Order: sequence, then C-alpha cells, then structure tokens
Amino acid sequence: MTREKWILAAVVLTIAVLVVALAPSPPLGSEAEQSRREAVRGVLDAQVAAWNRGDLEGFMAGYWNSDRLTFFSGGDITRGWKPTLDRYHKRYRAEGKEMGRTEFSDVEIDLVGPDTAFVRGRWKLFLSKSSPEGLFTLRFHHFPEGWKIVHDHSSEKQLRP
Amino acid sequence: MTREKWILAAVVLTIAVLVVALAPSPPLGSEAEQSRREAVRGVLDAQVAAWNRGDLEGFMAGYWNSDRLTFFSGGDITRGWKPTLDRYHKRYRAEGKEMGRTEFSDVEIDLVGPDTAFVRGRWKLFLSKSSPEGLFTLRFHHFPEGWKIVHDHSSEKQLRP
Repeated sequence: MTREKWILAAVVLTIAVLVVALAPSPPLGSEAEQSRREAVRGVLDAQVAAWNRGDLEGFMAGYWNSDRLTFFSGGDITRGWKPTLDRYHKRYRAEGKEMGRTEFSDVEIDLVGPDTAFVRGRWKLFLSKSSPEGLFTLRFHHFPEGWKIVHDHSSEKQLRP
Repeated sequence: MTREKWILAAVVLTIAVLVVALAPSPPLGSEAEQSRREAVRGVLDAQVAAWNRGDLEGFMAGYWNSDRLTFFSGGDITRGWKPTLDRYHKRYRAEGKEMGRTEFSDVEIDLVGPDTAFVRGRWKLFLSKSSPEGLFTLRFHHFPEGWKIVHDHSSEKQLRP
C-alpha cells in the first residue's frame, strides 16, 4: 500500500472515531430514559404494595441499605437504614400502632443524569381513626442492584381545626 | 501545497479535534467542583443575609423565577415564583407578622453533575415570641444567570407539649 493510501486510511479512521465520540447522548424521552423512569416508578409501586400487605421490611427494601441514608421528617433527621426501619417500626408496628393502607399520588419523576432521579409526590395513610397525608421529596441513586432512595424528606399536613 | 500535505493537515486537524472531544471531565474534588460548591453556598448565604435585613425580595432572588418552581411545606404545594413570594409575604410580612432573623445549619451540598446540586440542612427562625425550626431539602439548577433553587421542601419541627 502506498504511503498516500496509509494517510487516507488514517483520515478515514480518525473521522470515524470522531463521529462516534461526538455522537449526541440519547434525547429526552428516549427508550433508555423511559426504562429508567419505569424502574424508579417500580420501586415506589413495590413500596406501596409492601406497606399495604403489612410488610415493613419489604417497604424498606426501597431504601439504600447504608448508614448514609438520610430521612428528614418535621425537624428530625434520621441517619442510616436501620434507624429508619426502627423509626417506622416504632410509629406503625409497635404496641397499639397500625400500618393501615398507603397511597402515593401526583408523583413526578425527574431524571438527573443516568444514575440520579428526583421524585416529588403526595402520600396518604388510611388508618382506622385518621387519614394523615403530606408530601415527599426523594433522591434516588442507581446502584448495581437497582434504584434506591438515598434521601427522603417527608412532611405531614398539619390539621388546624 | 501538494495533495499529500493537504491530507497530512487533515489528519493533524482531526486528531486535534478528537483529543479535545475526548478530554475527560474534571475529577471529583477539582477546582471546578469546589467553585460550584462555593457558588451554591453563596446563594444560601445571600438568602440569609437578605432575610436578616428584612429584604424578602432579596431572599426570593435565590429561587428560580419560573412558574415551574415548586415549594413544598407540610401538606401544601406552592407552584411558581410569584405564589411562593406571596406565601412568604402572607406569613412574614403581613399585618402583625415579622420576619425576625434566620439561620441555616448542618448544610450539606451534593453536586449531581455540572448543573444540578442537592442541598440538605436545618433552618431556624428567631421571632420575638417563638423560635420555629426545621429542615430543608433543596434542588438547585445552574442557569446562565447562576445557581437557583428549583425545588424547596421545608418542614417544621412540631412542638408537642
């Protein structure tokens, strides 16, 4: 092969690599983004299903099993998966407490890059004597084992008679 | 210039563009990240300073001036910059109300990609007759005009005597 042909081959190769390197990332609403959105939604649906069958551990599977998980509620910061489980247990599984049924609504899922999602929504709890409700803001991270909540900020509607 | 020289020039140019295109993004803890972190912190500091001089509009400058801004508190969702300003005005500037002094603490800033930041912290308000306090989770976005809060979830510690 002549030197000129080698140079031409080099031009073709570098241009080919360049085209691949500069290929735009998938546009919004792409299949990849849609499947991520559905995976995050799936975690929330699984949490609701677990709660409604009285499976607190199943509900907790949606949270990052780490001491770096943060759970904000009112003025209280709970750090870590186990303390978060204990908090739920004390409030809904202890003597004289009930889990009731829960429902999430107005859920908005924003994907921020390939491994972070931001979720906003409303929660409602149906107990035998009351129906507390409020809002949540969740930060999800995508781990090899799937999407998990790494931060939960939940607040409750205050009933002022 | 001979044809061969033109081809050589093309190779050099394409390789140069390729090198730029494939340049890695700055590593974590880099100067770029540090300056982004300081810019976000600067928005919070400016909000506190504005609040403490009774400048509600200055405080609101930290929020995205859009009808897509969301402000969550208790069980109430406020959408849009103007409704959020009106909410603050009604609570802290209306007849018989006071802004008092505010203070943010335990502020944790997580950068999620180049234009999104996730901020957690505690707020406290010093009023003449009470000192309400609570938590906030903020989502910041970087706009050409700078970092702005695009979502605020604030909750208040409930005092149960």
